[in-house]
Amino acid sequence: MATIKVHGSPFSTATMRVTATLYEKQLQFDFVYINLQNGEHKKQPFISLNPFGQVPAFEDGDLKLFESRAITQYIVDEYGDKGTKLISNDSKKKAIIGLWSEVESQHYDQVASKLVWELGIKPLFESPLDPKVVEENEAKLNTILDVYEKRLSESKYLGGECFTLVDLHHLPSLHYLMKSQSKELFESRPHVSAWVADITARPAWSKVLALIPN
Amino acid sequence: MATIKVHGSPFSTATMRVTATLYEKQLQFDFVYINLQNGEHKKQPFISLNPFGQVPAFEDGDLKLFESRAITQYIVDEYGDKGTKLISNDSKKKAIIGLWSEVESQHYDQVASKLVWELGIKPLFESPLDPKVVEENEAKLNTILDVYEKRLSESKYLGGECFTLVDLHHLPSLHYLMKSQSKELFESRPHVSAWVADITARPAWSKVLALIPN
Ligand SMILES: N[C@@H](CCC(=O)N[C@@H](CS)C(=O)NCC(=O)O)C(=O)O
Ligand SMILES: N[C@@H](CCC(=O)N[C@@H](CS)C(=O)NCC(=O)O)C(=O)O
Repeated sequence: MATIKVHGSPFSTATMRVTATLYEKQLQFDFVYINLQNGEHKKQPFISLNPFGQVPAFEDGDLKLFESRAITQYIVDEYGDKGTKLISNDSKKKAIIGLWSEVESQHYDQVASKLVWELGIKPLFESPLDPKVVEENEAKLNTILDVYEKRLSESKYLGGECFTLVDLHHLPSLHYLMKSQSKELFESRPHVSAWVADITARPAWSKVLALIPN
Repeated sequence: MATIKVHGSPFSTATMRVTATLYEKQLQFDFVYINLQNGEHKKQPFISLNPFGQVPAFEDGDLKLFESRAITQYIVDEYGDKGTKLISNDSKKKAIIGLWSEVESQHYDQVASKLVWELGIKPLFESPLDPKVVEENEAKLNTILDVYEKRLSESKYLGGECFTLVDLHHLPSLHYLMKSQSKELFESRPHVSAWVADITARPAWSKVLALIPN
């Protein structure tokens, strides 16, 4: 098997999506640390792996990819026989997983990534948060979590009865938001709250967190 | 075969993504017109098809979906033997198509949808455009189209040598933007310009445009 390489930062939510998938699939990989504070992601050699200058980038032998969700999909398709399945081969189940994956990327993450920035990343640099951005995005998250609460009252996970890539894609932002004031929005909803507790307790996820330097 | 139903508006870019895919696959479908100006998408019965109150929604027998890109993926997976293929079964080629699909949804569409609103939709209602939003998003589109120009100098289509879902997903916003001032950003780049000419000339696309009332 060719060597898998992840170029990224252990603090980056998009990088964590990829490492979480690799740990779930029990695959070995090399982690190439990209220093975002020094702007390493905007320069060569990184920029030739991702012309948009964002982490992560990924290599599997001579295949080079970027965009975290394209990478996780490739991993689960290519290594179907390893570790946790994370997808379904049934066409209707696959379509439902696809639908909730789009909800994560088109609705949830648009809002969560702004809150992660304000409430999770800015405080690390003692940078003041923008209360208007927080308020607007918490209001939107509230509406989205109403939809999640209903969905999770009908099925154990967002994509159905099994833990899949859809749930996994939420883990990195949950890591930051569950340590912030937004925690309340998740904890006030019983099904959402049980889902957060379940998915954040996965052994693969603790391996991702162990990559973060103290 | 069960009846396929698309609930949407012929003016909506997300709806057009789905109808374009159905025409490429030579599939029959019923179009259920949702009147966005009357707020039909925010009320029952539509809201039970999509809790986010956005078009399109989709039915194939008892399978109900929303989110345009989840719907198009389902159609190409389920009806692999009909019409244009639009995907690849080779795992590496599929990964490259997946990567550029994410570029469309995470980079291009974030910017294009704002320009479509300002330059394509607002004028229909004689609503004044916001010059700051236009300027900011044209600057971002410029950077994205530099990446596209390089990519399209290396392969005929974004996903590789064949027309796929990736290219198709761009058609609805191109319809609006090629009639606006942003046209210049596409036409000033030879490979992007040839790609736009090629993909907008597809017979399936003219069927989508024929659904738009005069
Ligand atoms: N859509 C991309 C987003 C990647 C992204 O936003 N990466 C962030 C870190 S989580 C980054 O590189 N930020 C630096 C920048 O954009 O300049 C993906 O999912 O991979
Ligand atoms: N991510 C969704 C976006 C759907 C969407 O934005 N639909 C627009 C029309 S193109 C809509 O329903 N707008 C009305 C609204 O958001 O209230 C998809 O791809 O289906």
